[in-house]
Amino acid sequence: MEFSELIKTATVEDVLLSRPGLPAVRGTLCITSHHLLLSSCPRGDLELWLLIRNVDAVEKRVQNLGWYQPPRTGGSLRDTRVSGSSGTITLRCKDLKVLQLEIPGMEECLNIASSIEALSSVDSVMMMYPFFYRPPSLRLQQGWHLCPPERHFQQVASQALLRSSQPLTGPNRRRCREDEKLLGTILDEGERGFVIDTRSAQAAKQARMSGGGTEPKSSYPQWRRLHRALERGRPLQESFTKLAEVCSEPALSMDRWLGRLDGSRWLSHVKAALSTACLAAQCLDREGSSVLVHGAEGTDTTLLVTALAQLILDPACRTLEGFQGLLEREWIEAGHPFQLRCARSASSHARGKQEAPIFLLFLDCVWQLSRQFPFSLEFGEQLLLTLFDNAYASAYGTFLCNNEKERSLCKVKESTHSLWAWLNQPEEKQKYLNPLYSHNPLVIWPSVEPQSIQLWQGFFLRWIRPSQHLDEAWVEIRRLVEGNNSSIKESTGKRLSQSLPEPPAGTENGR
Amino acid sequence: MEFSELIKTATVEDVLLSRPGLPAVRGTLCITSHHLLLSSCPRGDLELWLLIRNVDAVEKRVQNLGWYQPPRTGGSLRDTRVSGSSGTITLRCKDLKVLQLEIPGMEECLNIASSIEALSSVDSVMMMYPFFYRPPSLRLQQGWHLCPPERHFQQVASQALLRSSQPLTGPNRRRCREDEKLLGTILDEGERGFVIDTRSAQAAKQARMSGGGTEPKSSYPQWRRLHRALERGRPLQESFTKLAEVCSEPALSMDRWLGRLDGSRWLSHVKAALSTACLAAQCLDREGSSVLVHGAEGTDTTLLVTALAQLILDPACRTLEGFQGLLEREWIEAGHPFQLRCARSASSHARGKQEAPIFLLFLDCVWQLSRQFPFSLEFGEQLLLTLFDNAYASAYGTFLCNNEKERSLCKVKESTHSLWAWLNQPEEKQKYLNPLYSHNPLVIWPSVEPQSIQLWQGFFLRWIRPSQHLDEAWVEIRRLVEGNNSSIKESTGKRLSQSLPEPPAGTENGR
Repeated sequence: MEFSELIKTATVEDVLLSRPGLPAVRGTLCITSHHLLLSSCPRGDLELWLLIRNVDAVEKRVQNLGWYQPPRTGGSLRDTRVSGSSGTITLRCKDLKVLQLEIPGMEECLNIASSIEALSSVDSVMMMYPFFYRPPSLRLQQGWHLCPPERHFQQVASQALLRSSQPLTGPNRRRCREDEKLLGTILDEGERGFVIDTRSAQAAKQARMSGGGTEPKSSYPQWRRLHRALERGRPLQESFTKLAEVCSEPALSMDRWLGRLDGSRWLSHVKAALSTACLAAQCLDREGSSVLVHGAEGTDTTLLVTALAQLILDPACRTLEGFQGLLEREWIEAGHPFQLRCARSASSHARGKQEAPIFLLFLDCVWQLSRQFPFSLEFGEQLLLTLFDNAYASAYGTFLCNNEKERSLCKVKESTHSLWAWLNQPEEKQKYLNPLYSHNPLVIWPSVEPQSIQLWQGFFLRWIRPSQHLDEAWVEIRRLVEGNNSSIKESTGKRLSQSLPEPPAGTENGR
Repeated sequence: MEFSELIKTATVEDVLLSRPGLPAVRGTLCITSHHLLLSSCPRGDLELWLLIRNVDAVEKRVQNLGWYQPPRTGGSLRDTRVSGSSGTITLRCKDLKVLQLEIPGMEECLNIASSIEALSSVDSVMMMYPFFYRPPSLRLQQGWHLCPPERHFQQVASQALLRSSQPLTGPNRRRCREDEKLLGTILDEGERGFVIDTRSAQAAKQARMSGGGTEPKSSYPQWRRLHRALERGRPLQESFTKLAEVCSEPALSMDRWLGRLDGSRWLSHVKAALSTACLAAQCLDREGSSVLVHGAEGTDTTLLVTALAQLILDPACRTLEGFQGLLEREWIEAGHPFQLRCARSASSHARGKQEAPIFLLFLDCVWQLSRQFPFSLEFGEQLLLTLFDNAYASAYGTFLCNNEKERSLCKVKESTHSLWAWLNQPEEKQKYLNPLYSHNPLVIWPSVEPQSIQLWQGFFLRWIRPSQHLDEAWVEIRRLVEGNNSSIKESTGKRLSQSLPEPPAGTENGR
């Protein structure tokens, strides 16, 4: 396939771009293999670049205000433009941005729309933009080996937080001696461990019929099984879609808003994920027990729980570098199928069975932690937003493919740039740091009571409500910190060590 | 009445005080005319002072673990203490704090409880604490004449925001020539004004039967009447009670929390109040029209709307001094009946007909403004909390009585200290300032979409969720600003004038 086959109309003049809350812009629209570009006319002082991969849904409406003249054979496309006819394309992006383009000429409009549809759903990984993007400030292979897993395993030789997929006991209740032995070696005599299954007891039981199942008590006498059902797959995707929809709805009454916020169930998922992570962290920290987490495949809710538990427990995961390592280890190398899960976002109608915003749910939970512990994470909201954007549409190869095997086959590490290499450039890095950060050596126990969990406005209302004042406050605080440097760092360190965060009563039982 | 008559047991030893989220304290409990005092034993290093006026409800539970010996005539109270009997008193405070006292001795427990009940509901204004409180750092009569109304009227000679009570048209549709003439003088020929009635059209019509009513169109041809029904009285009080209740409920599911948050309707009231204030502000600012606001008496929702509209429009009201002036003018001198409205808070069972948290609703709306415009108000959340606390139970006379006439009869200004005199002392004032404040000369149009309105956690969860981390962030920012002074002020001023806050689309019609 050649990209040029997909682009029937490459340029249209006199296109009007509208975005909610911003002044409209008129200019020239260009479609390239990977980008939609609008340069404002007459001065060209505004350029909008949109990665076409970011488009989640294309809606088109044509108005034939005059009469329609069918294209003559051999005639140029220009000939068919009927005076007065025009079209409107609404692009709903994966990052929840909405753009509206008014395009003079019905045919041009239809061509542009079908090009965007086709280009945004190219399936072949190696046709994607990361394989073509060559920024001058970076070199290939930089940033791909942040934290080799071997180094991590050395650091955590007594690590006792494990994850896996479900055991394949099946309907005949098969045993697996190797598994039993493996889990046996972890515990000394008299010690006990917990298996946290992220499915309900019922679902785990049903999984036996299709070859899966759960650890039989008799074969794992030192392990206690706990079920904490976390939603995944279709229900989670629907939850995201519903919430994104109601967030952009204007003129709702308060009743209706709260009813539909509740109906989306998104905040329930946030609460459940944080609670389960707290439970895992408590077993490790309070009971001193080993913990094994799994669901079915071990690549979705399992990772959600193990990654959050590490953030709660381990201050090293709360630095910018440590968090990148955590993402590499617990999401990318652990085989979260980013390509399948993030193929479409909240607006697409052509929804596959595999999409699910598990990674967004993780980012939301991290945001909740950062809000409750404003000093303890070295990075801020901007990093979480950037991670979401790049997981769904990116110039970098970091979130491409579904697992290490696919990445190796596609030579992702050889042929694309790493997002981390870009983020870690000194001037870029500044944007993602939390100016109030101060190393906190303690466990951060979040409150998981529903009263404490908030809608992540910075994500869900990013393009809808102007947050410029809040952004400015952040910039201002950063500027203050920079002008106030070293002497303060010391005294802050002192203050923090005095105010040990006590776990709120409500989290004692991992509720 | 002598206070001593109400105090049957003045001191009890070995009392255990528990508060949610804090370690329990054992010590000696004393009851004085106005305070409950607990000093920790054995070291006396912790003293808890509670203004008894702050107690909203007293719940007692006695456990007679041994046998009960009735008091002998002439015997001392000590004689009646039965070994093993004890009691628990739960004090629900007006500021939503909850204290639990375990008191050895059933009789002592009952005596303490009845003293607190009696002392917290003393009716006579002149028996209240402000008439006895004499702090050494203040002198009487200081701070009572912040901004005499005459000076304000001079400043706003072309002020065209008016408030009143309802016209007394009654069932016979009486006219009032004086009113008509007064409103007539405000508008030049061809100009028009708006009457914003804070009752529904139906309620305004019904008010005729009891002598009230609304302006007939024919008598006020240049004025257009708009109805924006705002809840007051009993429904508002119930809304507050419901919300306070659900906020303190542990282990709720997310569904149940959102359902009950919705069921309390508090956020709907916040939205409605802000929307109506935006409507008034728009009539003034966009249409250049005069506005008259009234409900029934003109001392509740009327003040809510006029005070908020002024905050939105006028940067002078957004300074600490200007805000105190606004409260003096639009709430205290305007006759909001603080004594009736704030007699009881969310927990009291003995509820009168006159209680209503209109002032709290105002403070909540101001908090919403401060959150949406973090640079534009010179004061922070701490001031709003302090104002609430003092409106419900205070050492100062500022919020005593229901109107100026009562305050004059009770000689409040001669015999009590002003809250403003206390707040405006340099070291005290620091606590209330917003470190990020920078004068913003523009109108601040809030978003009043339900998605933008948040639960005021700092108030409703003040004693429930530990906010020490957020408080520390605030202190840290203040310290940064102090170390970073004058040079920054200039550049901040510059930045702000570049980023003019555009009214969000949603508020265009005062939604």
